[in-house]
Amino acid sequence: MATAIEDYGLREACGVFGCIANGPWPTLLDVPQIISLGLVGLQHRGQESAGIVTSQGQKGSKFVQKKGGGLISSIFSEEDISKLKGNLGIGHTRYSTFGGSDVSNIQPFVVETLHGLIAVAHNGELVNSGPLKQKLLRHGVGLSTGSDSELIMQLLTQMPHCGEPNGANWVGRIRHMMEQTPTSYSLAIMHQGSIFAVRDPLGNRPLCIGKLLPLAACTGNVSLQADDSCEGWVVSSESCSFGAIGARLYRDVMPGEIVELSREGVKSHCVVARPEASLPALCIFEYVYFARPDSILEGQMVYEVRKRCGKQLAIEAPAEVDIVSTVPESATPAAIAYACALGIPYGEVLCKNRYVGRTFIQPSSRLRKLGVAMKFGVLSENILNKRVLIVDDSIVRGNTMRPIIQMLKNAGAKEVHVRIASPPIKHPCYMGINIPTREELVANTVSIQDMAQYFGADSLHYLSVEGLVKAVQSGIKQDHTIGHCVACLTGNYPVNLDW
Amino acid sequence: MATAIEDYGLREACGVFGCIANGPWPTLLDVPQIISLGLVGLQHRGQESAGIVTSQGQKGSKFVQKKGGGLISSIFSEEDISKLKGNLGIGHTRYSTFGGSDVSNIQPFVVETLHGLIAVAHNGELVNSGPLKQKLLRHGVGLSTGSDSELIMQLLTQMPHCGEPNGANWVGRIRHMMEQTPTSYSLAIMHQGSIFAVRDPLGNRPLCIGKLLPLAACTGNVSLQADDSCEGWVVSSESCSFGAIGARLYRDVMPGEIVELSREGVKSHCVVARPEASLPALCIFEYVYFARPDSILEGQMVYEVRKRCGKQLAIEAPAEVDIVSTVPESATPAAIAYACALGIPYGEVLCKNRYVGRTFIQPSSRLRKLGVAMKFGVLSENILNKRVLIVDDSIVRGNTMRPIIQMLKNAGAKEVHVRIASPPIKHPCYMGINIPTREELVANTVSIQDMAQYFGADSLHYLSVEGLVKAVQSGIKQDHTIGHCVACLTGNYPVNLDW
Amino acid sequence: MATAIEDYGLREACGVFGCIANGPWPTLLDVPQIISLGLVGLQHRGQESAGIVTSQGQKGSKFVQKKGGGLISSIFSEEDISKLKGNLGIGHTRYSTFGGSDVSNIQPFVVETLHGLIAVAHNGELVNSGPLKQKLLRHGVGLSTGSDSELIMQLLTQMPHCGEPNGANWVGRIRHMMEQTPTSYSLAIMHQGSIFAVRDPLGNRPLCIGKLLPLAACTGNVSLQADDSCEGWVVSSESCSFGAIGARLYRDVMPGEIVELSREGVKSHCVVARPEASLPALCIFEYVYFARPDSILEGQMVYEVRKRCGKQLAIEAPAEVDIVSTVPESATPAAIAYACALGIPYGEVLCKNRYVGRTFIQPSSRLRKLGVAMKFGVLSENILNKRVLIVDDSIVRGNTMRPIIQMLKNAGAKEVHVRIASPPIKHPCYMGINIPTREELVANTVSIQDMAQYFGADSLHYLSVEGLVKAVQSGIKQDHTIGHCVACLTGNYPVNLDW
Amino acid sequence: MATAIEDYGLREACGVFGCIANGPWPTLLDVPQIISLGLVGLQHRGQESAGIVTSQGQKGSKFVQKKGGGLISSIFSEEDISKLKGNLGIGHTRYSTFGGSDVSNIQPFVVETLHGLIAVAHNGELVNSGPLKQKLLRHGVGLSTGSDSELIMQLLTQMPHCGEPNGANWVGRIRHMMEQTPTSYSLAIMHQGSIFAVRDPLGNRPLCIGKLLPLAACTGNVSLQADDSCEGWVVSSESCSFGAIGARLYRDVMPGEIVELSREGVKSHCVVARPEASLPALCIFEYVYFARPDSILEGQMVYEVRKRCGKQLAIEAPAEVDIVSTVPESATPAAIAYACALGIPYGEVLCKNRYVGRTFIQPSSRLRKLGVAMKFGVLSENILNKRVLIVDDSIVRGNTMRPIIQMLKNAGAKEVHVRIASPPIKHPCYMGINIPTREELVANTVSIQDMAQYFGADSLHYLSVEGLVKAVQSGIKQDHTIGHCVACLTGNYPVNLDW
Repeated sequence: MATAIEDYGLREACGVFGCIANGPWPTLLDVPQIISLGLVGLQHRGQESAGIVTSQGQKGSKFVQKKGGGLISSIFSEEDISKLKGNLGIGHTRYSTFGGSDVSNIQPFVVETLHGLIAVAHNGELVNSGPLKQKLLRHGVGLSTGSDSELIMQLLTQMPHCGEPNGANWVGRIRHMMEQTPTSYSLAIMHQGSIFAVRDPLGNRPLCIGKLLPLAACTGNVSLQADDSCEGWVVSSESCSFGAIGARLYRDVMPGEIVELSREGVKSHCVVARPEASLPALCIFEYVYFARPDSILEGQMVYEVRKRCGKQLAIEAPAEVDIVSTVPESATPAAIAYACALGIPYGEVLCKNRYVGRTFIQPSSRLRKLGVAMKFGVLSENILNKRVLIVDDSIVRGNTMRPIIQMLKNAGAKEVHVRIASPPIKHPCYMGINIPTREELVANTVSIQDMAQYFGADSLHYLSVEGLVKAVQSGIKQDHTIGHCVACLTGNYPVNLDW
Repeated sequence: MATAIEDYGLREACGVFGCIANGPWPTLLDVPQIISLGLVGLQHRGQESAGIVTSQGQKGSKFVQKKGGGLISSIFSEEDISKLKGNLGIGHTRYSTFGGSDVSNIQPFVVETLHGLIAVAHNGELVNSGPLKQKLLRHGVGLSTGSDSELIMQLLTQMPHCGEPNGANWVGRIRHMMEQTPTSYSLAIMHQGSIFAVRDPLGNRPLCIGKLLPLAACTGNVSLQADDSCEGWVVSSESCSFGAIGARLYRDVMPGEIVELSREGVKSHCVVARPEASLPALCIFEYVYFARPDSILEGQMVYEVRKRCGKQLAIEAPAEVDIVSTVPESATPAAIAYACALGIPYGEVLCKNRYVGRTFIQPSSRLRKLGVAMKFGVLSENILNKRVLIVDDSIVRGNTMRPIIQMLKNAGAKEVHVRIASPPIKHPCYMGINIPTREELVANTVSIQDMAQYFGADSLHYLSVEGLVKAVQSGIKQDHTIGHCVACLTGNYPVNLDW
Repeated sequence: MATAIEDYGLREACGVFGCIANGPWPTLLDVPQIISLGLVGLQHRGQESAGIVTSQGQKGSKFVQKKGGGLISSIFSEEDISKLKGNLGIGHTRYSTFGGSDVSNIQPFVVETLHGLIAVAHNGELVNSGPLKQKLLRHGVGLSTGSDSELIMQLLTQMPHCGEPNGANWVGRIRHMMEQTPTSYSLAIMHQGSIFAVRDPLGNRPLCIGKLLPLAACTGNVSLQADDSCEGWVVSSESCSFGAIGARLYRDVMPGEIVELSREGVKSHCVVARPEASLPALCIFEYVYFARPDSILEGQMVYEVRKRCGKQLAIEAPAEVDIVSTVPESATPAAIAYACALGIPYGEVLCKNRYVGRTFIQPSSRLRKLGVAMKFGVLSENILNKRVLIVDDSIVRGNTMRPIIQMLKNAGAKEVHVRIASPPIKHPCYMGINIPTREELVANTVSIQDMAQYFGADSLHYLSVEGLVKAVQSGIKQDHTIGHCVACLTGNYPVNLDW
Repeated sequence: MATAIEDYGLREACGVFGCIANGPWPTLLDVPQIISLGLVGLQHRGQESAGIVTSQGQKGSKFVQKKGGGLISSIFSEEDISKLKGNLGIGHTRYSTFGGSDVSNIQPFVVETLHGLIAVAHNGELVNSGPLKQKLLRHGVGLSTGSDSELIMQLLTQMPHCGEPNGANWVGRIRHMMEQTPTSYSLAIMHQGSIFAVRDPLGNRPLCIGKLLPLAACTGNVSLQADDSCEGWVVSSESCSFGAIGARLYRDVMPGEIVELSREGVKSHCVVARPEASLPALCIFEYVYFARPDSILEGQMVYEVRKRCGKQLAIEAPAEVDIVSTVPESATPAAIAYACALGIPYGEVLCKNRYVGRTFIQPSSRLRKLGVAMKFGVLSENILNKRVLIVDDSIVRGNTMRPIIQMLKNAGAKEVHVRIASPPIKHPCYMGINIPTREELVANTVSIQDMAQYFGADSLHYLSVEGLVKAVQSGIKQDHTIGHCVACLTGNYPVNLDW
């Protein structure tokens, strides 16, 4: 959603979703509709392709699946949805791919094992995928997709004690898999009548559980009330998907936790411990821009964190200007809070054309020079002869800020100041975010001062790492160990990378 | 763009666009790229289908055309654009259709006449289409599309004096057509090396001319400077399309004016007079929500008009609340101005999921009850225990406001007040806007008081007609007769409807 | 279907079809299914695009239409068919186009006239389209498709006496149109509850009427028995489409005849006379290869005519060979008859790969040299060390015969002789067949002897014009004037071309 | 291709194809074009989906792949082909599927193994897939496609000695796999610079090798001459694909043989022995109708075998009739030979509409009764008052013969006799052919006499099993053990099925 990022910089993570109907079979709930709407609510986490797998949930039940490229609304026709009828199911929406746009990479993956079918939907990236892959190959397994998610699936199947007295023992298998790789994965695993919601021991990617409420008024995504009756359960990367399906946030899946959703309800099987000496490590950029602002992570609404980032930025880098504005849309709460903290009027200066997408412009065209001008209109009367400050959420490659500032100055802004509501990105991510190479990250190539000059900005300031961490952590209840992954900002990775 | 309207109420008008390259043939300009990007800039006026027609512009030159359904970006491939190569061309993007989704209704229309090919792109609806059609049928012309635009085309072809000494005389033909129908039409007509930009005598729909600047810095859509050199000319429904193509607003086409764009430049042929006793009648809802906020109509930016609406609303219907917000996105400037005028904090309370479109939900589904909850998330921490006021741009059928208020109250709002930045819509439009029937317009069925109660709003107020007119007209230079069509609000139509 | 022609030479004509249900409305018949299956039966006449228009058939009934590019089976989905529900309708399938692949050229055309809607499906090409077009343009009609079929439609609408006491008078209008243009057109015209089946005065393209039989055994396309009851009527370019819909051939539409199909039955209104001194002129190539072999034209089955061509060829150009074969598929009856007449064994030597279509081979590829080898396999054991004679139906550009002969010789044929079951094509067609230019017709560029040498044939003979005419006419009952168009063979056109 | 089978009975097998360019890299050959054309030549073996995988052929070279549903010509665009550039590659075309139309089932399959990437294309079905699957699952491998081809791939990867001093040892791995499953598989396996052509020890499905000739005249598919130079090598299910790519049949892959194609040429590694007491078992229905008539199997052209079947049928079941004909198209050689043997004229009586495919006809429609009438026209003048005999290649469910006979009798045939050029099918196939259940096979439900009566045939005779075997085997050189699988006719399976 972040402007500076959308087309040029970081890529979204993926979204996972699952739903199981309560009570006796067959269910009255529209399970496939709920899953598809849940995925629409997670669409901001991936727009490239998606899939849904459902089942009647009994031993020997077949899995029904539908996958495709594009947005949810174009993949699943009414007919597809009706064919997906089932009592439970999981879904996935994906952005970037290892194996390119090959359809065989679209999740959820389904495999047949000695103990029946399982389906897996995965958000994240394994830090030790290399050695895990070698281990599987050495065991004689041929791998067909090149994705980490297939490694997870084969690890679940490979557990040494399978076939022993305790039979399939899926919890044991999941636990065994988790002990071999600390991060990064949030998973929905479907087997027979259960969906296992699993979050890696570091809790690097979000995952939460929601309760499906009866048909009565169930709008809004506020937290759950005690005596609510229940029609089923859902698991989702973010709670923002709950409003559209009549669910309420029940709780987060804890880092390392294996939670089983079945028609008996919600059961927490165990919590796999973090590697020694490591802290929890939810990706801090989920707060900065991956998550939707109305999602609740660790008990706090993302929107509020973004406001605190703006407020903190006002403390760290105040300015004397006439108007504070945003690069729409994800920097808006930070901009409003920044303006409010300094008592400066907030107003809009850029008007986004939401129909601009991949274009058909030839490299040779005169029009290439116009760059982001295709994406934004300037609300010139708001800035004529004014000192303007714009807040953006982050800078990755730095190739949109310069033309934006040019547009504003051409339109009559007297000064243009820039504030970034997060610190400079300097290091690669090995846990699921497709950050450009070090060389492509503008923060590695020039000083902030030079950057300001190149952009044509009258001033440029980032939020400090400490400021960001404070903005994030000050809203979390301090009843357990808190930690966040800030590796892309500091180079301090939450786990040892020398596998 | 207006939320309350997008899926349930008024439909967008259409957009017309044309481009001609300056100087000797063949042009260096990317005419088809410019037209397609121009149409992307008008995409908010119609998303159903679009077409482009280009020509080398000489006597006997063939017209090349490409039309299709969907968004511009999906209709025109790189290959299509390269086949459209030409020195001039016109395009059209369309929302609603007379003849349904039949491809033969996609504009621009091309016809062969005794004097060569012409192409026509039309925004508007003829108030006297009935008698005009009978006249043509009586002349023995078979009509194939059922659209007003075909009537215009055949009227242009039918002119009685064709074939006379003055030959084709296209200006005379256009003038003759305009004398037979006072409104509503903004047209781009291509013939040989010329594009005629035509606006009806009442000026009911907008139309303006832009100048294509050389390759140097040409971002921003500020007004033109005197000594700019020029690479070509464009005509567009709105100036918001100019930024993306490196053009600057040159001037509006005046009501009743016929302007010819050719490689000799811009030539105004004549201004056809309004019917006696009538005033100019630009549709006031272009300001309220059809136009993009960064467009300039009658010399003023639409965004500023919307701010004045909010300010006026604060005067007419102030409130004591804790936070003022918007139903995203087109009501935002009014909301910010309302908040500012009353010194109340402005904040966001609804988070829009831009991926929600036409859905696959069966009528029988439990999920239908959730209605707009699929479209918005609530930023609950911004409203918990607060008195909230939301500004929307208009109410048509009234079927989204009730669930929005429910969502806000469920999320903890203590009070929810509603302000509408335009007056109640009570009358049908016969000039191009597809307003629901009188019975479907909520303002015709209940009193404002009852409406507030039905919505669950703690108070509900509309802007007055006088307030809206003042907000619009106070920003226009008073050097000529000013008037706007407010027929849907008052029932006073700008021309006699008894044809 | 003819091999030598399919990809390189002549193009198919179009197919028209119409159906009306008998008895009281609403009908029990599946009118849109019948039309779509009827069009599948005419698919060999045009594979580029198709359309169907249906109506409830009462005054003021709307027309429902669906058009698209490609084969019938890909254009009309089950849903489309169900939306086309009606009591009568017409359809069209098309090969080549005037206006290119523009969708607005797909027939049937629908226009609104002073007297209601009409739909027109047309097979043919007007010999005097130039002056007719000028006449319409001079009347001030703008023409939008560039096709002859639009001219027909506007001529029908333009009739001078329209609006007179006798009202719409569609028969009079059709008659008036026919008097202005002698050929070439076979039409199905739908208006209210009637379908007019119209054939031009020269009868240049075929058109016939079929009777829909009750549900009982109705397979086969034999001629009608006297006491059959009837469920409705159909009109079709060829009778081969009748078997698949349970219809039987009722009779041909006569040259110049206007037949009205309605729920009252079949009514012949009149027969418009041929221009003085002209003979009937059914295109003789309908017998040679346009028509499907199981169609009945002028009372005789096309297959039998092709056999007579082969028999005649055996008389005119016998050969001493070991095996007679065909270039599949349309020359097969001629080959079998040729073999039979001379007492030489008939056998297959070429095996057609019916999956070869437009290919993806780059011009630079080594594979281009293989030419028709992609299309045929050689049944080498049938020809090894044998003297082989192959019969083909025609030679147009002559670019497939050479590689075929090479293949046969490479595979071991001792000699390869060629017989063509029609005379050399030397002149352009102005009546609907897209024959290459004079220069591209191989018969205009080299002598038959040189051609044989170039092909590598040991002998090459064509059927004589007299032989072809005899083969065609000897099967027709001699109770009225007989004549066929052989203009492409002789240059003697059936009507004066100096318009 | 056989009528009685195409839409109602047996399903085609699959086709595999591979190509490697000779000489130094990079190749001048159009490898992807050759593969796609080769697959077009095998299209009759499967029209549901297809795929191609290519590689530069060096250690570490990536595999490029493209897969899709539909016909080859619609799957591979020119752009796709250009992206597939490589020095070698394999392809696959498929009919029926285990896993339904799921894209993940489209072959060739690609897997990463400890020793690099391999790609596998498979035609056949493993008789012992059940126990093999259990073995793999017990080893902890998760299986994702449900297809036998995945089992083969994982068996290749699983070989116990992998990682030993001799490294990857792909020949050893393939051999080890072959020792675990005797039939049915013909494979093309690509690894680095080699394509392994593998046929199961029983030789149940065909597979042959072809030599790519230089650019000079290379049409026809006759056997190879000694001194031909060579541009590369291909492997194909059938030799009929060679003509279109300029290749000549080099030799069959022997049952049990592993042949390696590389730029060093063709190397036979070994021949894995058949299970004791079993004979070779090429599916005899490859001769009856799977293979294209111009393919050469076991040294003889399929067309000749079909002629011998017809001749044998004339001996076993002669008839006194006026005309002998075929149900087009695959029974034609048998019909011609039958007629010739008895000295009765051969002629055509049915005209096939090749545009009839899956239709849009509703179950409730009157048109359903017309059945095959949609597919065939009757050439009635050839049969009027005649005694007609039609030859078909096989009868599976028996639901097309009855309406065909009805059509012929309705069209005037005095008698209709039926001869089937193969014996009755009575038993299921476990080696790759999707034969209906025993209950659905008409030969299991009624006697031949009753069948004749039900069909309305005046006589009905099948070819005997001995007659078929004689017709097939009498054309093969008797220099090694000969045997064919006739299990579906006799119930005697070539290997023990009790796994």
